[in-house]
Amino acid sequence: MQFRLLASDNKTKARCGEITTNHGLIPTPAFMPVGTQATVKTLTPLQLQETEAHALLCNAYHLYLRPGHEVVKKLGGLHKFMKWDRSIITDSGGYQVFSLERLTKVTDDGVEFQSPIDGSRRFLNPEIVMDIQHALGADIIMAFDECLPYPCEKDRVRQSMYRTVKWANRCLKAHNSDDQELFAIVQGSVFKDIREECTDRLVEMEFNGYAIGGLSVGEGNLLMNEVLEYTTPRLPENKPRYLMGVGFPLDILDGIEHGIDLFDCVIPTRNGRNGCAFTSNGKLKIRNSCYKTDERPIDKNCHCYACKNFSRAYIRHLLTSNEILGLSLMSLHNICFFENMMKKARQSIIEGNFLNFKSKFLSLQ
Amino acid sequence: MQFRLLASDNKTKARCGEITTNHGLIPTPAFMPVGTQATVKTLTPLQLQETEAHALLCNAYHLYLRPGHEVVKKLGGLHKFMKWDRSIITDSGGYQVFSLERLTKVTDDGVEFQSPIDGSRRFLNPEIVMDIQHALGADIIMAFDECLPYPCEKDRVRQSMYRTVKWANRCLKAHNSDDQELFAIVQGSVFKDIREECTDRLVEMEFNGYAIGGLSVGEGNLLMNEVLEYTTPRLPENKPRYLMGVGFPLDILDGIEHGIDLFDCVIPTRNGRNGCAFTSNGKLKIRNSCYKTDERPIDKNCHCYACKNFSRAYIRHLLTSNEILGLSLMSLHNICFFENMMKKARQSIIEGNFLNFKSKFLSLQ
Repeated sequence: MQFRLLASDNKTKARCGEITTNHGLIPTPAFMPVGTQATVKTLTPLQLQETEAHALLCNAYHLYLRPGHEVVKKLGGLHKFMKWDRSIITDSGGYQVFSLERLTKVTDDGVEFQSPIDGSRRFLNPEIVMDIQHALGADIIMAFDECLPYPCEKDRVRQSMYRTVKWANRCLKAHNSDDQELFAIVQGSVFKDIREECTDRLVEMEFNGYAIGGLSVGEGNLLMNEVLEYTTPRLPENKPRYLMGVGFPLDILDGIEHGIDLFDCVIPTRNGRNGCAFTSNGKLKIRNSCYKTDERPIDKNCHCYACKNFSRAYIRHLLTSNEILGLSLMSLHNICFFENMMKKARQSIIEGNFLNFKSKFLSLQ
Repeated sequence: MQFRLLASDNKTKARCGEITTNHGLIPTPAFMPVGTQATVKTLTPLQLQETEAHALLCNAYHLYLRPGHEVVKKLGGLHKFMKWDRSIITDSGGYQVFSLERLTKVTDDGVEFQSPIDGSRRFLNPEIVMDIQHALGADIIMAFDECLPYPCEKDRVRQSMYRTVKWANRCLKAHNSDDQELFAIVQGSVFKDIREECTDRLVEMEFNGYAIGGLSVGEGNLLMNEVLEYTTPRLPENKPRYLMGVGFPLDILDGIEHGIDLFDCVIPTRNGRNGCAFTSNGKLKIRNSCYKTDERPIDKNCHCYACKNFSRAYIRHLLTSNEILGLSLMSLHNICFFENMMKKARQSIIEGNFLNFKSKFLSLQ
């Protein structure tokens, strides 16, 4: 992997660059659609390519449970399995184990939990998670971290941070794949001293990139910005920075302003399936009866397949009739909207007017 | 509309031709995927075009209930609404009213029933059904008929047939659209004399084409063939014949052998969504665990997007994980399989070896 900075904004910490992996180039800042179970819900890889997404985030946790990482490996790895020849990041499963599972037992060694699929007891620790991600074969893989709920008591956050740092170190030692880059995940909830200590310790270990985790979990945009404000300056300039699970356009543009290079979120697909379209003039609840005979596309400024071909009235009809094509068209459009926003953000950084772009973009939202 | 016969089989009544509508050519015998609610479930029009489907069947009944035929008309008609620029047939709603509705009250004037969407009382009769289909604007529209369950007492079938004939006549009188061709529907369950009388009466009225309805409702393949055996010879040679709601490959090939030109059925899409793939070597239940690591495509002889790009293992993973992409890929493949079967059937009729083709094809199913 190579990371090259192309331009930095004068007025903010925003930066524009490119990550090169074995599966091509990711222009940054980049938004990655989420393909939890080796598919970005409702879309073919061909449709996804048309959104100009350059990388996807898949979940090691889900693929470990089903179909199993060894199955994916046997079938040639995740790229071949899901027929996506651009870049892939796999999340380590930390977030999923702690947020989705009950009956979870955490020790310094690892996490025992119950599979939601077959009820079997499962155990994950840093070494196993690295094995899983090696088998899946994503271009960028994540260290196994402990994710806490929000809010959380400071003492617990500090203890958890030390565990995350130790686990990151074990991941680093267990990482033996030349084709895959390992990123660490900074935790520490909304506590400045804990985030700073976590960041410094992880930076010392020299990972290939750094993610900021444990945000977008209910703390809100203001606190998220506070954390980014004191965390990102401690991260090395020459390595990619990834804000995990973020987010709405406002959060993403704030993240870019703080020097973040990578984002992922289910919002465009999940909200799309729920009938919410993002447009250059703000959100549009496509099920509303006011769109019943609306001949216009979802967004007149969008060039996606959905906007080029279908009226709001038709897409509304599909959603109110529970037709799957409605879910696909909404997902496709929303991902295009996010990717297009990123493209404009990159352009504005290169042209030195990111803040203008940001305030104009958000004023219409 | 023009209907031109290109070739007839020497040994059977099979024939090959082409129907030309304002929206292009339909090579016959043709299989039409079903787009009940103005969408062939899970597929974009672009994906559908790739299956080489030349016509779709949509349901006037469903579109009348939602979004309403006047809405579709306001939006430029069904072709523009659903972005399908090839031919469309709309079914009259007869089958739906009688098979889907409760609290149905039938008189010679028409049918009163309760909308399953909002519980409102609705009334359809031949004139209203023609209005609805004129508003939708399909290339071929169907007369309003009474559909009986199977089995059904002969006296009731005879009375119902007379009603269907009267309603067909009222449809003919109410039909005032030059751009749309009106087909009548032959009813009569499995009774030879009733089918024959119905056929003769409808043929006298000179419709643009003739459908055989009330089959594929539980009577089985043998009885279906019996009905076709005595019904199709009474239909005019120079007009298209449409066997409604049929069927499995065996039923379709039998229909072709009896001189049928058009077929529609939900089997490829519905069975696909349920995990059943049609292949050149028979049906394949993709959820079976034997496919867990199967690297092969669904059908090595198929050139569809699903078979060109994905393994059985991946599609199995999608279906067992309840991922929508699995439903799309299965639907796409199955429609391609049916369209490809039709293409080969047409070719075999032209080459004079339809029976050979049929027996070889079915021997592998």
